[in-house]
Amino acid sequence: MWAQICVVQFPAMKEKISVSEAQQTVLDASPRLGGETLSFGAAQGRILAEPITAGRTLPPLDNSAMDGYALRSEDLAQASPDNPIGLPVVYEVPAGGQGARPLVAGEAARIFTGAPVPAGADTVVEQEVVEAQGDRANFRAPVRSGKHIRRAGEDVKAGEVVLQPGIKLGPGQLGLLASVGRTFVHVVQRPRVALLSSGDELVEPDGDSTGGRIVSSNSYSLAAQCRELGVESNYLGIARDTPESVEKHLRAGLGSDILIASAGVSVGDHDHVRPVLEKLGCKLLFWGVRMKPGFPVTFGRFEPGQGPLVFGLPGNPVSAMVCFEQFVRPALRSMMGYRDCFRSTIEARLTHAMKKKAGRLNFVRVCLERRDSQFWATSTGTQSSGALSSMAIAQGLLIFPSAAETLEEGTVVKVQVLEEGLLGNSSSLVIDE
Amino acid sequence: MWAQICVVQFPAMKEKISVSEAQQTVLDASPRLGGETLSFGAAQGRILAEPITAGRTLPPLDNSAMDGYALRSEDLAQASPDNPIGLPVVYEVPAGGQGARPLVAGEAARIFTGAPVPAGADTVVEQEVVEAQGDRANFRAPVRSGKHIRRAGEDVKAGEVVLQPGIKLGPGQLGLLASVGRTFVHVVQRPRVALLSSGDELVEPDGDSTGGRIVSSNSYSLAAQCRELGVESNYLGIARDTPESVEKHLRAGLGSDILIASAGVSVGDHDHVRPVLEKLGCKLLFWGVRMKPGFPVTFGRFEPGQGPLVFGLPGNPVSAMVCFEQFVRPALRSMMGYRDCFRSTIEARLTHAMKKKAGRLNFVRVCLERRDSQFWATSTGTQSSGALSSMAIAQGLLIFPSAAETLEEGTVVKVQVLEEGLLGNSSSLVIDE
Repeated sequence: MWAQICVVQFPAMKEKISVSEAQQTVLDASPRLGGETLSFGAAQGRILAEPITAGRTLPPLDNSAMDGYALRSEDLAQASPDNPIGLPVVYEVPAGGQGARPLVAGEAARIFTGAPVPAGADTVVEQEVVEAQGDRANFRAPVRSGKHIRRAGEDVKAGEVVLQPGIKLGPGQLGLLASVGRTFVHVVQRPRVALLSSGDELVEPDGDSTGGRIVSSNSYSLAAQCRELGVESNYLGIARDTPESVEKHLRAGLGSDILIASAGVSVGDHDHVRPVLEKLGCKLLFWGVRMKPGFPVTFGRFEPGQGPLVFGLPGNPVSAMVCFEQFVRPALRSMMGYRDCFRSTIEARLTHAMKKKAGRLNFVRVCLERRDSQFWATSTGTQSSGALSSMAIAQGLLIFPSAAETLEEGTVVKVQVLEEGLLGNSSSLVIDE
Repeated sequence: MWAQICVVQFPAMKEKISVSEAQQTVLDASPRLGGETLSFGAAQGRILAEPITAGRTLPPLDNSAMDGYALRSEDLAQASPDNPIGLPVVYEVPAGGQGARPLVAGEAARIFTGAPVPAGADTVVEQEVVEAQGDRANFRAPVRSGKHIRRAGEDVKAGEVVLQPGIKLGPGQLGLLASVGRTFVHVVQRPRVALLSSGDELVEPDGDSTGGRIVSSNSYSLAAQCRELGVESNYLGIARDTPESVEKHLRAGLGSDILIASAGVSVGDHDHVRPVLEKLGCKLLFWGVRMKPGFPVTFGRFEPGQGPLVFGLPGNPVSAMVCFEQFVRPALRSMMGYRDCFRSTIEARLTHAMKKKAGRLNFVRVCLERRDSQFWATSTGTQSSGALSSMAIAQGLLIFPSAAETLEEGTVVKVQVLEEGLLGNSSSLVIDE
């Protein structure tokens, strides 16, 4: 009886699940964070959490799209090359000002781009086709009413919703906020992230690396992966291989939204992260994902409001980075209010054959080359989970399905794109053809 | 005679040139900036300006890839399910430590992932297939020499170049720098950018917008476009429509690498930017590019070391942003050390017909939708150069070639992708098939 109640309250941790099941578990546990109000200058890259209603009409008044002359179109009805019509230029409309008085029949006003069209005028003639003579101007063609006039409200009408919640605030959105005078906006918060690593063999980059000690590089690559999403993290340091040290470091991160531990998550005698998390009240949701690298990844959560989501990432540098991509990044993006939380894939052809054992989905580090409209994928070299050098140059992670054992040269495969800019930049000028 | 010398020293400004000619002119005038030395924690996103030679070997020693037992493979040559071989476990190798002494024939040592393989041992047996009994361990299968051992130098060998100049420092690169203990690196500088706008009709976002005055939104959208590249700008404010005010504002930006003025670059009576720039010693390289929006864009330079590159962008909000994309962004990226300085294009099909006059290349604001592996492009609405709302939601700029007058529904067109993340994120889990 008790056992059954316990199962309901604390569902058993899932083990050795698929990548997609693990991703779905993470996504389900990562609801969007609340909102906060920021000056729009600090809101770049944030997701808008409110609809923006324009408080003003843009442009505010009918205005000229050209430098030229404002007048009544009916006054030029008879104009032609052989019958030029001359009109007195009775005043100039300054930018940011208004016409001195309404124009009447037979008058023209000098006007510049953006200046309000004076009352009485219904059209603008561009200066290139006008002969100016002192305070008169000659016109040699008729003009239709409304020409070269930008109408009030053409861009935005007061009361209209100009930005919907859920949109990312980029340059165009920020310009629009400025235009309608909305200088404070409600946006989705950013997650607070804490990072730690564990292991007696680890030192900081400036530490003593003799005797087989190695640098705790994961903290720096994971912090950089967070920063790519606009998220700063707190680094809690290196826990030693004792339950006490691991507990002390984990406790320091319990006030965050996401706590990321690297190493110590397997089942060895020195892997203290999982038992200490459970002691602290964390419910482990999964351990072990059928993938390589990254198999021993662990995910847990505290009761809502009681503590963070916790990711236990493997200690190997590539495993940690690959697990971040598959699980931590989607959690961060979901909390930040994005709807598209996962890396997308492209199709690429293999430049060479690959093989592996069946059973686990492999993420193979590859470079991508675009030939015509086809991408080609090539392994970056050793796929050891410790070989950070082959991760550093990877542009994508090739998805080698779990059941497959071989991929022939030329096979079309799916590749997760790691570099967002990969498809965003080119060395080619704009081609006009 | 003098005229000819002047022509040689100050080549005539080009007018009404093509987009690609203007882009090439900008690129030729934008050499890579010099280097600076930064702590690697501050170098994220920068282009490396030196080769990084590893000062250490990684992993530093042969180490175990598994939790298990280190031993001599020859001791298990006769092991089988029916003939288990028991070995004494003579010590444990701590992570970050060393074996107490070399192993001799007939001995095993407990070992954990990442711990150095003790001298004398040539293989590791994973704990899952070993029966531990007190201080002995039983083995029921032979094992090949070298199994589960990560070799010293598998990732990096001391003296090897691990990162080449020209690479962008992302998470993998930063992790690698940490690993080899390189905590200060030489990277390409970021350009110093100054921004100003001009026009008597302009106010700041918190200013009085009655009487047809409008917000100087360009400064904010252009600053955000710079920030997307990791470049902070100095905002010099709004110049009034007098030569004196324009000169004062332009002078304030002469110490920058790139000076961006918006508005005042056309040929009207109130367009003071060009004459003031020439008075200050700036050589104008082009005025007028056969594109829409953005025709009156102006580009100039001072003698090297005497002043910045100067972009005079049109005042209309969309024109300014589109000109930034085509000309300013490539200049910034080139100075920052990128080789791929331009937005790349994808092919998309049109969901509807479009028309325009022949003569100028049009950049049409579009949304992009991916159906299967095909992108479809749809206009975001009014293409007025003042309609920021239709720019704010654009994901790409469709290239409507200058000679063309119509594009039929279903036509395959080239679209410049504005959102780098467009192809980088997806709402789909990893599919294992």
